[in-house]
Amino acid sequence: MMTEHYITSSVTPLDNLDVLSPYEVARLQDKSQSGLYSLFRQCALAVLNCGSELDSTRKVLDRFHAFDVQISQKHRGVQLDLINAPATAFVDGELIQGIHEHLFAVLRDLLYVADKVESCCDGLDASSAITNQVFNLLRHANTLRPHVKPNMVVCWGGHSIASAEYEYTKYVGYELGLRGMNICTGCGPGAMKGPMKGATIAHSKQRIRDGRYVGVSEPGIIAAESPNPIVNELIIMPDIERRLEAFVRLGHGFVVFPGGVGTAEEIFYILGILLQEQNRKQPFPLIFTGPAGSEAYFDTVDRFIRATLGERATQCYRIIIDDAHGVAEAMREGLDEVTEYRKATGEAYHFNWQLHIPLALQQTFEPTHEAMYGLCLSRNQPDHTLAAQLRRALSGIVAGNVKEPGIRAIETHGPFELCGEANVIEALDQLLQAFVEQRRMKINHEEYEPCFRLATDSKAS
Amino acid sequence: MMTEHYITSSVTPLDNLDVLSPYEVARLQDKSQSGLYSLFRQCALAVLNCGSELDSTRKVLDRFHAFDVQISQKHRGVQLDLINAPATAFVDGELIQGIHEHLFAVLRDLLYVADKVESCCDGLDASSAITNQVFNLLRHANTLRPHVKPNMVVCWGGHSIASAEYEYTKYVGYELGLRGMNICTGCGPGAMKGPMKGATIAHSKQRIRDGRYVGVSEPGIIAAESPNPIVNELIIMPDIERRLEAFVRLGHGFVVFPGGVGTAEEIFYILGILLQEQNRKQPFPLIFTGPAGSEAYFDTVDRFIRATLGERATQCYRIIIDDAHGVAEAMREGLDEVTEYRKATGEAYHFNWQLHIPLALQQTFEPTHEAMYGLCLSRNQPDHTLAAQLRRALSGIVAGNVKEPGIRAIETHGPFELCGEANVIEALDQLLQAFVEQRRMKINHEEYEPCFRLATDSKAS
Amino acid sequence: MMTEHYITSSVTPLDNLDVLSPYEVARLQDKSQSGLYSLFRQCALAVLNCGSELDSTRKVLDRFHAFDVQISQKHRGVQLDLINAPATAFVDGELIQGIHEHLFAVLRDLLYVADKVESCCDGLDASSAITNQVFNLLRHANTLRPHVKPNMVVCWGGHSIASAEYEYTKYVGYELGLRGMNICTGCGPGAMKGPMKGATIAHSKQRIRDGRYVGVSEPGIIAAESPNPIVNELIIMPDIERRLEAFVRLGHGFVVFPGGVGTAEEIFYILGILLQEQNRKQPFPLIFTGPAGSEAYFDTVDRFIRATLGERATQCYRIIIDDAHGVAEAMREGLDEVTEYRKATGEAYHFNWQLHIPLALQQTFEPTHEAMYGLCLSRNQPDHTLAAQLRRALSGIVAGNVKEPGIRAIETHGPFELCGEANVIEALDQLLQAFVEQRRMKINHEEYEPCFRLATDSKAS
Amino acid sequence: MMTEHYITSSVTPLDNLDVLSPYEVARLQDKSQSGLYSLFRQCALAVLNCGSELDSTRKVLDRFHAFDVQISQKHRGVQLDLINAPATAFVDGELIQGIHEHLFAVLRDLLYVADKVESCCDGLDASSAITNQVFNLLRHANTLRPHVKPNMVVCWGGHSIASAEYEYTKYVGYELGLRGMNICTGCGPGAMKGPMKGATIAHSKQRIRDGRYVGVSEPGIIAAESPNPIVNELIIMPDIERRLEAFVRLGHGFVVFPGGVGTAEEIFYILGILLQEQNRKQPFPLIFTGPAGSEAYFDTVDRFIRATLGERATQCYRIIIDDAHGVAEAMREGLDEVTEYRKATGEAYHFNWQLHIPLALQQTFEPTHEAMYGLCLSRNQPDHTLAAQLRRALSGIVAGNVKEPGIRAIETHGPFELCGEANVIEALDQLLQAFVEQRRMKINHEEYEPCFRLATDSKAS
Repeated sequence: MMTEHYITSSVTPLDNLDVLSPYEVARLQDKSQSGLYSLFRQCALAVLNCGSELDSTRKVLDRFHAFDVQISQKHRGVQLDLINAPATAFVDGELIQGIHEHLFAVLRDLLYVADKVESCCDGLDASSAITNQVFNLLRHANTLRPHVKPNMVVCWGGHSIASAEYEYTKYVGYELGLRGMNICTGCGPGAMKGPMKGATIAHSKQRIRDGRYVGVSEPGIIAAESPNPIVNELIIMPDIERRLEAFVRLGHGFVVFPGGVGTAEEIFYILGILLQEQNRKQPFPLIFTGPAGSEAYFDTVDRFIRATLGERATQCYRIIIDDAHGVAEAMREGLDEVTEYRKATGEAYHFNWQLHIPLALQQTFEPTHEAMYGLCLSRNQPDHTLAAQLRRALSGIVAGNVKEPGIRAIETHGPFELCGEANVIEALDQLLQAFVEQRRMKINHEEYEPCFRLATDSKAS
Repeated sequence: MMTEHYITSSVTPLDNLDVLSPYEVARLQDKSQSGLYSLFRQCALAVLNCGSELDSTRKVLDRFHAFDVQISQKHRGVQLDLINAPATAFVDGELIQGIHEHLFAVLRDLLYVADKVESCCDGLDASSAITNQVFNLLRHANTLRPHVKPNMVVCWGGHSIASAEYEYTKYVGYELGLRGMNICTGCGPGAMKGPMKGATIAHSKQRIRDGRYVGVSEPGIIAAESPNPIVNELIIMPDIERRLEAFVRLGHGFVVFPGGVGTAEEIFYILGILLQEQNRKQPFPLIFTGPAGSEAYFDTVDRFIRATLGERATQCYRIIIDDAHGVAEAMREGLDEVTEYRKATGEAYHFNWQLHIPLALQQTFEPTHEAMYGLCLSRNQPDHTLAAQLRRALSGIVAGNVKEPGIRAIETHGPFELCGEANVIEALDQLLQAFVEQRRMKINHEEYEPCFRLATDSKAS
Repeated sequence: MMTEHYITSSVTPLDNLDVLSPYEVARLQDKSQSGLYSLFRQCALAVLNCGSELDSTRKVLDRFHAFDVQISQKHRGVQLDLINAPATAFVDGELIQGIHEHLFAVLRDLLYVADKVESCCDGLDASSAITNQVFNLLRHANTLRPHVKPNMVVCWGGHSIASAEYEYTKYVGYELGLRGMNICTGCGPGAMKGPMKGATIAHSKQRIRDGRYVGVSEPGIIAAESPNPIVNELIIMPDIERRLEAFVRLGHGFVVFPGGVGTAEEIFYILGILLQEQNRKQPFPLIFTGPAGSEAYFDTVDRFIRATLGERATQCYRIIIDDAHGVAEAMREGLDEVTEYRKATGEAYHFNWQLHIPLALQQTFEPTHEAMYGLCLSRNQPDHTLAAQLRRALSGIVAGNVKEPGIRAIETHGPFELCGEANVIEALDQLLQAFVEQRRMKINHEEYEPCFRLATDSKAS
Repeated sequence: MMTEHYITSSVTPLDNLDVLSPYEVARLQDKSQSGLYSLFRQCALAVLNCGSELDSTRKVLDRFHAFDVQISQKHRGVQLDLINAPATAFVDGELIQGIHEHLFAVLRDLLYVADKVESCCDGLDASSAITNQVFNLLRHANTLRPHVKPNMVVCWGGHSIASAEYEYTKYVGYELGLRGMNICTGCGPGAMKGPMKGATIAHSKQRIRDGRYVGVSEPGIIAAESPNPIVNELIIMPDIERRLEAFVRLGHGFVVFPGGVGTAEEIFYILGILLQEQNRKQPFPLIFTGPAGSEAYFDTVDRFIRATLGERATQCYRIIIDDAHGVAEAMREGLDEVTEYRKATGEAYHFNWQLHIPLALQQTFEPTHEAMYGLCLSRNQPDHTLAAQLRRALSGIVAGNVKEPGIRAIETHGPFELCGEANVIEALDQLLQAFVEQRRMKINHEEYEPCFRLATDSKAS
């Protein structure tokens, strides 16, 4: 309806996000390697580009190569000057308020992470130090609310799903919202937007004015999954592993909608945790759900889990098809159990300290060709360890599909090579094959070209 | 998904609606002719039945004949006991908060009207006294907000419209909401719900936490058009005429979506006002709009207006097809003009005192067979007078279709007889015929049987 | 420090008090007998004159004879133009916000009373109708807050008291405020201001942001006891009897500080109620208190009560000297009992419906010479009846001292004549004599000339 | 009225102060040298002891040697267990809310400072790094409010002043509060409490619900000047120099009431800044004021300034005696100039970045005997440099009077020795002599024994 064009505008923050020091302003303007400018520009653009259909960071950066963001101190606070910003972010020349807030959430988190880089954690081991950082970042973003009964439902699923699936995610969100639950997602479109939209309507009917629509992103994924403006708490974690940890420590219940490889990655991340002995006692509501017609996705995933991790892993989740009301009821019960457990164990409601996350799932995985090749894809190891390895394999495939450095690596060196035990590789092959057939690999299915090559590993056999 | 059943529950009001006197409680429990019990029960049921598809008051009352509402004073306030209430109003045994509020809005307005029945207006003429009552009722319901720039858009249209039309009303509401506008409707389903739903999402994106979704109803229509729970300000006017006056004095801009005879009635009511000489100078944004595929409705109405009131009347409105963005832009401009005019003339923003409404449009019209027969449907009178007569004719047809006393009258005495000048009657015939063909006469089209008979009037010729 | 002068200024209300109808604006501007102008001007002046030492309505009206208030509708609401208003109400040319609110509270209540004059109470007896009016007025002023545990302490006492007494009232208010109690007084200076000041500091320390400082006045007394601006809920009752009823139905506990005849009137009003058989079971915390050095006042009053009503009456109250902490502790216990009793009997927290007030104490008493002479001051009647008669006698003396019509009547016809049984008259004589000696009769003690003459009644003997 | 005793109780924070990590809880419980336990216990005790008259840290610690504070995580947040806490902090067994908040403000700031100790300020010089730390700490405490017109008035003066002086500070605070100004003090009793009390009443009359009563303290002084509970924003800076910098960067106007050596120290600190060439253009309202009868203090100080820094320094301040209204008017004008200047120079309202503070005034001064002896008290240096030296001398005397380490040093090594140019030393001698005579040296004047010895310096001559 509108021809695409660009808008140049100035915005000032509400609240106290505009209380910056000259030192911080300088960092944001610093275009050197150690400066924040380039990262801030990239995330700001992603936030402004929320209406777009592009799912590759590079395409976004290309289209808006003339975009710039400048920051200055005015006598009453900070001002951002947006140059050649996507017009879709504006209504009658005014930036949509939700996007406005997102811009400053990005600024807040990038500054915080930069400032804390060498932050002290004397006496903390590596794993605890990472968890502590995740906690500090979420607290600084004011995401942790004590004294509130567990009600945060994390929804995972594809950002590019079929229309019936999208409608179903809205309906599930509506039923969750009617029961006073809040929504946390990866904050892009599709399954990350639908539940928030449904919950918004439900919260309106229930007069819940402080409904929370939490979006957790990270610089590498934000351009491909621009936060939708309903998100009223946006958090930019420094990388994918901390983002995943934020989800599982913040959320009280988990719903997985149909998605692609990224969704499968999230499933293996969570299974890698739940299969830990230390986490066995903890109630952890995890529901896979989709509308009638989407059974195939969960069939595929379920089969792959059985084939690789074994039966035990299937006890961690429940599959409910085409029953939004049932999902909400099950989640209600699940949250009640979580509440009971936290009370009984003296655990905080606002952050799941008790969940044991092994260092292997916390450490940043750089999906280089070497690292991908080096993965140990064999059942000859504990199930949770294999889950962590599979999570990395899937993560690398996502990177090769949509993340800037991944795409570049593929362009240079050809597809990643993954090898492992024959059974595992075969299962992986079937999984990925099924995803391609179900058109779940990428938005533009026609031209999809796999970024990986599978090989039975001589190491593992 | 749920089998229909009943719930018995107790609710207490928030706020100060529970500060009732024993005298008021007694009135609400009074089952005598002069008591409020029966009216309160009927409206309470309508409010609780919001999810239902029934559009006849009688059907609603029949299905829920076992429903009862009892009121009592508890040490901390008032308590309502709902017996055999529609289960759809509850989630996990708790009344949906929006419906909860509606119950007490009904109570508030019925008590107010009852108390004020003989209220003093010494020295006011009949027309001013009615306007004063409308004002007092709206003020008492806290609907009038001074110091706020004109932003209230009244949306009219059918409660039973096609899916594409419903989606379109959502989209228009979304575009209005993005621009900070609030929505006021007759508060039922269809075109009365869609714009509120769209605006809710837009307000969420714009972080407008105090978005207003005003529903204006009256006891005779509420059962057929149960308020949807998004409505966060429900007002029950004492009758249809005061309800219409509330709309035009409260609203700053008007959007008409496709509807049926009720919508046409509203159009003729507003034309009867705008054609008054005194109102000529006042900017009054009035837009008829629908999606591609719904042009027929406005063609029909437009043709009927030209045939009866003449060309002049067509200058009062603008028809925009399939352009939600365009509607919002036009409304934005219209509201700016309204703001300018109110400022220039020293008029309040919150209530349009300047609008001249002739007594003929204010007086209650009881659509008896006699009254319907007595209408003067001839072009041999000023256009605004004819508009008022046609508004009554259409009002009677709505009553015969969905209102309890109307339906009963038709059952007893047969269809209403309408007669008038041949051209007018012919035009009316075509209008109603077209509505039947477009399936706009009633929800259940199959069994629709006209409640009227047209005849060229020997009086008028 | 400032020379007295006048300021002319315009003010607009906050909130929705500026949503007036043209009809209401006309009433406020109506200078005819039935119009509200003159009453409004008088009360507005009283409110604006809050810093003054004048305690006679006439003196106030004289000094500010050039004062005028005009009301007009502006496009965004109502505007009040204040002409030659007391400069003490302004800071740097801006009206003090508290006084600003008082102006519109006056407007609100005068309009409400005027509108309701003929209001319907079909089927209510005279006493219930008066109580209903008191309730309606308080509710309309938003003074009734349900769901709040009893915490409203009414403080009575002189508006012109010694410095040590004033400091003590502050200290008592501070101790009450520390315990979360709110304060309600007649809203003038002295004992009506001190407790509010103390409670303000205590509420600040306890972070109670919505502390309530309720002032209940009436047009006849407001000029002599201008509301102090700490009062954040001002209510203008139509007359002294409704004002007293408002106190006892609104308050949960009662503290009486030293005062003059007005305070004694309040004591006899409350005794006239508490001695009723129906009220015997109700807990009703009533504490007389003052600092060391003020024992004389309560000795005098206590002796007078014993001499007239007898010992039984002394069980209704408790005298605590020089122990602010003890007063607060006793009140805390008293309020707990009130809470228990209201819960047990299903009575509202926000309005004491159960308290039986005899019609004799509700009916307006016009202190004419005839009426004063006609009072029955004899012990040959039930104690509560005598209490009501004595309340009227004391009320008449207050009127003769400070109220405009009373003063005028005395000037014309000489002092009131009061006569009755020898013992009663003698006790009354001693009481009034002691008040004169204690300098409690009027601010300007030097020129005090009694407005009454006592005589042993041949009727009563 | 109450016999002194102890209370043991548990408190939980409101807000998000109870979102602590296990790591932070461990630090607070750590009784080792590097742990926070001992500092936290000391400050917590000071905060709880606010009603006391003791002005020596050691006396406080002695009386409450059995006091302990323990911290634990509960399932919903943090809990503090207070053991043998001063009973004066409680009302009916409940901690006064203001004190409650202060406890958690202490916790917040101690943790923040501890965490930031090694915080990065790459590329900042020493002076900027200190300013940056002050800024970060104030921002973290949510003290910086952008978009608010300059209205923060810092009040300095003695914590132990005569009754008439105390009343006067209340009156000045009242007049400032009536004009919408907020108050910032060192947050103890006396001149640090009076202005807040007066402003509280004024804010109540002006319906300013978010009046700010900011108290800035530091661990070394807090026990001697326990925050009064009116303070609704308490900040614990790490040391005296950062505390002083917080005052001057946060405040927009400055009022100095009579005080003792500490007040004189503050005066020389500010003169050391204002005499800097870079600060000459900046409007900086600085008013010395006291009631009639307190002229002597400012005479003494003024004479000392002239004798040491010279005439030029006297242009930095204005002395107003016994005119609270005049002080407020002058401050109003001063703030208007500040506002204009900040606007014109694009400076933030919330933090005075432009004020140049020389490193000499920022660096921590440890008042050892050696350091005191080493001060250069000669006029043979720029006036601002001498001001900085005199500020240190006075700071050392305060330490020797009331601070724990200072008192211990004096006990061990005898009085500090100060030496310098004859004229300066003589002037200093007169100043301190006059303070002793005016009884401004310590609360308990009788036993006052000087902690210093003056000697004309052979170095300087």
